[in-house]
Amino acid sequence: MQDKKYLMIPGPTPVPPSVVTAMSMPLIGHRSDDFAQLHERVVGKLQKVFQTKNDIFILTNSGTGALETAIANTVNPGDKVLSLVTGNFGERFANIAKAYGAQVDEVEFGWGNCVDLKVVAEKLAADPEIKVVLATQNETSTGVVNDIAGIAALVEKTPALLLVDGVSGIGAIEHKTDEWHVDILCTASQKALMLPPGLSMITVSDKAWKVINENKSPRFYFSLLACKKQYEKWNTAYTPGVSLFLGLEASLDMMLSEGMDNVYDRHALLAKAVRAAARALGLKLLAEDHCASNALTAIYSPEGIGADDIRKILKKQYGITFAGGQGKLKGKIFRIAHMGFADKMDVMIAISALEMALVQVGFSVELGSGVRAAQEVFLGKVE
Amino acid sequence: MQDKKYLMIPGPTPVPPSVVTAMSMPLIGHRSDDFAQLHERVVGKLQKVFQTKNDIFILTNSGTGALETAIANTVNPGDKVLSLVTGNFGERFANIAKAYGAQVDEVEFGWGNCVDLKVVAEKLAADPEIKVVLATQNETSTGVVNDIAGIAALVEKTPALLLVDGVSGIGAIEHKTDEWHVDILCTASQKALMLPPGLSMITVSDKAWKVINENKSPRFYFSLLACKKQYEKWNTAYTPGVSLFLGLEASLDMMLSEGMDNVYDRHALLAKAVRAAARALGLKLLAEDHCASNALTAIYSPEGIGADDIRKILKKQYGITFAGGQGKLKGKIFRIAHMGFADKMDVMIAISALEMALVQVGFSVELGSGVRAAQEVFLGKVE
Repeated sequence: MQDKKYLMIPGPTPVPPSVVTAMSMPLIGHRSDDFAQLHERVVGKLQKVFQTKNDIFILTNSGTGALETAIANTVNPGDKVLSLVTGNFGERFANIAKAYGAQVDEVEFGWGNCVDLKVVAEKLAADPEIKVVLATQNETSTGVVNDIAGIAALVEKTPALLLVDGVSGIGAIEHKTDEWHVDILCTASQKALMLPPGLSMITVSDKAWKVINENKSPRFYFSLLACKKQYEKWNTAYTPGVSLFLGLEASLDMMLSEGMDNVYDRHALLAKAVRAAARALGLKLLAEDHCASNALTAIYSPEGIGADDIRKILKKQYGITFAGGQGKLKGKIFRIAHMGFADKMDVMIAISALEMALVQVGFSVELGSGVRAAQEVFLGKVE
Repeated sequence: MQDKKYLMIPGPTPVPPSVVTAMSMPLIGHRSDDFAQLHERVVGKLQKVFQTKNDIFILTNSGTGALETAIANTVNPGDKVLSLVTGNFGERFANIAKAYGAQVDEVEFGWGNCVDLKVVAEKLAADPEIKVVLATQNETSTGVVNDIAGIAALVEKTPALLLVDGVSGIGAIEHKTDEWHVDILCTASQKALMLPPGLSMITVSDKAWKVINENKSPRFYFSLLACKKQYEKWNTAYTPGVSLFLGLEASLDMMLSEGMDNVYDRHALLAKAVRAAARALGLKLLAEDHCASNALTAIYSPEGIGADDIRKILKKQYGITFAGGQGKLKGKIFRIAHMGFADKMDVMIAISALEMALVQVGFSVELGSGVRAAQEVFLGKVE
């Protein structure tokens, strides 16, 4: 059989049937009242998920487009940018700032570690001319979650803006945009928001608007001023991905109906089960517990066994796709996403197949022992 | 989350995405050339699956409609009918014959047992006036498969017709309609054929046509003569379920592309794994190995524990639906379907959740031990 697939990569993630159905509804014109009403409703629901009263612009591009929008509207050539890097996507955020001519101070915290707040405080104190701070909420390449609340508390006291890449964590891990004073939050449709790729979202604080209004960087499609002008009428600056808007309302309805606290608790439970299972199988986790992501888990392949050999067996024989390692971790780790439309049985699928694949590559594990560790988490037998 | 569901009942079964997509195509008129061509193609593909050159009529009704069609066209009031009963659906087949005024000799082989060929031979020898023999290929209520080849070899030597209820087994368990000389085979869309309910299929041998042509029972919607008349032009007697025809072609394409031998081997492997897992968990199987179905497995609930209590936990906490017991087995067994769009990971889901539910109802099992037994089957570590 070729059609039964289990996609466990950090985006795109599986799309729930109710969302697929919503996206299959007849298209509506994007300059119609129907669209304006849909747009207004969706922004209202996103504000609940993002915990913000700020404007939220829904852009028709991938998450990288949202990151570029954040940079293009706030960074002028020559500006000092402090970039807090914990992996591949932190590097990408820094690279976008460099592309816009910023002087980027890239602080590497190591792949698998999270941002050290002491270093951030020192950096900010040492250079009051820092205009923009770049941080990653959930580093997709390593399965590390950063303390955005802590970073924001430091940046808030300075004139700098805090731009947060929340692409792979928003909807899986709580983010209090307004309470924490995050100036710009970027996220995208194809992760915990349970949609296909094609939309991204960006929030803008009052502090950020002052900078955006004065910004000189060239931008047209990515212009937040162009967005803002149309947003007042619940219009979009350019043609929006209409069917994804329809799907977004359905996925937000699912999340809000489950209750965001329940959504976050579910992600935490799945992460805990996957980590317990990995440990039971004698595998090493990339992220330490205190900074482990609830959205995905990165696991080292056993010594001497290529992670991609395990991934190949999983894909070919069990229909399961885990993500591989990126950059310096290529071939060394595999990453199991448990974000969005994921539940306990996805963990059972991932771990039971992983156990078989490990046996098949010659790594000695007790079959069923990883499953048992995850079951014990689900049954509340583990603190 | 409310939407992630795992339907493991013996029909309806999960519908593959490619089949859903095919059924979502624009409807076509059922008196069009397009429909006639679709009809011809689908019958050709069904003939491969059913291993027959006989006419195959695709009826727009459930499997029971096909069983009634078989009876209504071959049984006259007062006719002697030998009914081989191994469970609930065998009883239903007999009841339909009674509704048409037949003198039905209902031979009960016990729920969990299969048809004893010696008894069939004796019955046929004792009464040469038997006009029709009713048999169930796969008894859905007990997870027992009957030896249709053996039954057919006995009936073939008599003037009687053999009518086979293959509703829940065709597509999961090989059936050689012509080689075995099965006169009428009935099946339906919502089991191993991976479609929603709404269509049934019936094959008719030359021996059967002679009886059908002379039959006096009242019938209109269920008239095979009416079907046959339109069939010559690839038409249907009454309005067909057009979108299900579109889906049927897609599901048959999937099966034929996998290869029927592979389809049957897959079902056998899943059944073997489920049975190994149940045994490892100390559970008692209803059917003995020699007559165990490859399409579904019936398992006794542990002594003193209601099967439906286990089923409730599975549904509410893990999103999984097992079937319960029917008739005299109600509350005593649960049934796990592994037919149609099912693969190894479905077994992992079923067994890992079952283990948790057993612990939750207070039955002592070693978590992971059922999963391990199934994994060992999948890894070829079990003979």
